[in-house]
Amino acid sequence: MSYETLKKHRTFEGETLFCEHDSTATKTKMKFSVYMPNAKVDSAIIWLSGLTCTDENFITKAGAQKILAGTNTMIICPDTSPRGVGAPGEDESYDFGTGAGFYVNATTDGYKDNYQMYDYIVKDLVSVLKDDFNVQKISITGHSMGGHGALVIGLREKEIFASVSAFSPIVNPVQCPWGQKALKGYLGDNESEWKEYDACELIKAGKRASSSLLVDQGLADEFLKEQLLSDNLKKVCSETDQALELNFREGYDHSYYFISTFIEDHIKFHLKHLA
Amino acid sequence: MSYETLKKHRTFEGETLFCEHDSTATKTKMKFSVYMPNAKVDSAIIWLSGLTCTDENFITKAGAQKILAGTNTMIICPDTSPRGVGAPGEDESYDFGTGAGFYVNATTDGYKDNYQMYDYIVKDLVSVLKDDFNVQKISITGHSMGGHGALVIGLREKEIFASVSAFSPIVNPVQCPWGQKALKGYLGDNESEWKEYDACELIKAGKRASSSLLVDQGLADEFLKEQLLSDNLKKVCSETDQALELNFREGYDHSYYFISTFIEDHIKFHLKHLA
Repeated sequence: MSYETLKKHRTFEGETLFCEHDSTATKTKMKFSVYMPNAKVDSAIIWLSGLTCTDENFITKAGAQKILAGTNTMIICPDTSPRGVGAPGEDESYDFGTGAGFYVNATTDGYKDNYQMYDYIVKDLVSVLKDDFNVQKISITGHSMGGHGALVIGLREKEIFASVSAFSPIVNPVQCPWGQKALKGYLGDNESEWKEYDACELIKAGKRASSSLLVDQGLADEFLKEQLLSDNLKKVCSETDQALELNFREGYDHSYYFISTFIEDHIKFHLKHLA
Repeated sequence: MSYETLKKHRTFEGETLFCEHDSTATKTKMKFSVYMPNAKVDSAIIWLSGLTCTDENFITKAGAQKILAGTNTMIICPDTSPRGVGAPGEDESYDFGTGAGFYVNATTDGYKDNYQMYDYIVKDLVSVLKDDFNVQKISITGHSMGGHGALVIGLREKEIFASVSAFSPIVNPVQCPWGQKALKGYLGDNESEWKEYDACELIKAGKRASSSLLVDQGLADEFLKEQLLSDNLKKVCSETDQALELNFREGYDHSYYFISTFIEDHIKFHLKHLA
């Protein structure tokens, strides 16, 4: 077993676990949470969280356990960055550094040694799923920065991920303040490298996910207009053959109350592709 | 409207609200959260939280909104004590004072002016439900210290509460360390007064709830043997005509993972009595 279980809570006849392991990519300990509906799961959904989150937010608030109970699919929720590595300015803002890894492999000085969150997800976390949990098939989803991560990873790694969905994703980070700050900080000034971590740019460049993209977006989301730019994803998908189901939800905001309302739809979408 | 809405989140086609109002009982502002499945509810469940909790824990973690969606029953979750009133030692321990009101009307110096949580629930919160939310029928439930509160209030106020349930309740506080510390601190040395806030003692003294008591208790609960003493409730109910359904749950602990697993059973129990 390559991970240590820190806490365990019986939940809906399965187990909610909080775990820690050594990451090759980040060269740090990394935490993740898990819901195992039973001891013999054969597939997994990866949940990527948003800015400021840890491995705890989703597993505590989203109500996913109730939906997964009785299935053979687990969910795994990694932390959102390495922590405490002493990168310059890593704790100065909520949208860069600690809690804000943006699921990229950093190349800038001070960050390139540890902020390798793309590889952490695609290599280390996938290895844990395959080697320790004996999972055969994997899907990916997430929220906001984690929705961005899910789309980018799902588009770039279609051999690994059976299906891709997102809640309130940052779909076009090269065009919004959150994305520009993070991509510049982690990758430097060469904007062509930024496009490797931008769902809209990846689709334009010909990348395709192994499934239709399922996206839910609240219309009362305070970040929709400036940061999330969902219409850009709609446009690029309509101009290519990347299938997209984009549901705008009247009155819903950016919170876990929104996620909890629609998580059942997303889990059922992934279960279909994982079957 | 006697309350102010501080935050509002659309959830399962209804609204999760965080509110504040002036309490006559505590002479302070008090916060509560609410889930309204629709604008025309006619009944309510009161949820009383445990030690250290605020109005936020249950509404964030329990997954109750999914169960109540589509019904005409709201849930309301008050805070667990007045806050910042400057009572002597109120912030010195997790199990007395702030976050630990124990749902009693304090009589000791320093606490009697504001720590009137029994009256706060039975008078102020019930008034908000009837006058502002137009609720006709009310049930009550809660967890740990809040399970104690629900049982005591339900037993003493059967005219007000249609049904009573509890998760992991402190059933016999006069017999356990948490209860003894709180009752002594809030009521002083006269132990006969303590019995007015003890579910087992109230049943012995002839009090009966308007329903069977539904209680769920995890067998892996770290507080079961020393603090919760569920068997004492089983014994006193078996010796009287107070009906009890006590479900011991193998492997479950004291956490919200336990509550989220069985909240549907409790809500459905109350919906039957509120119909």
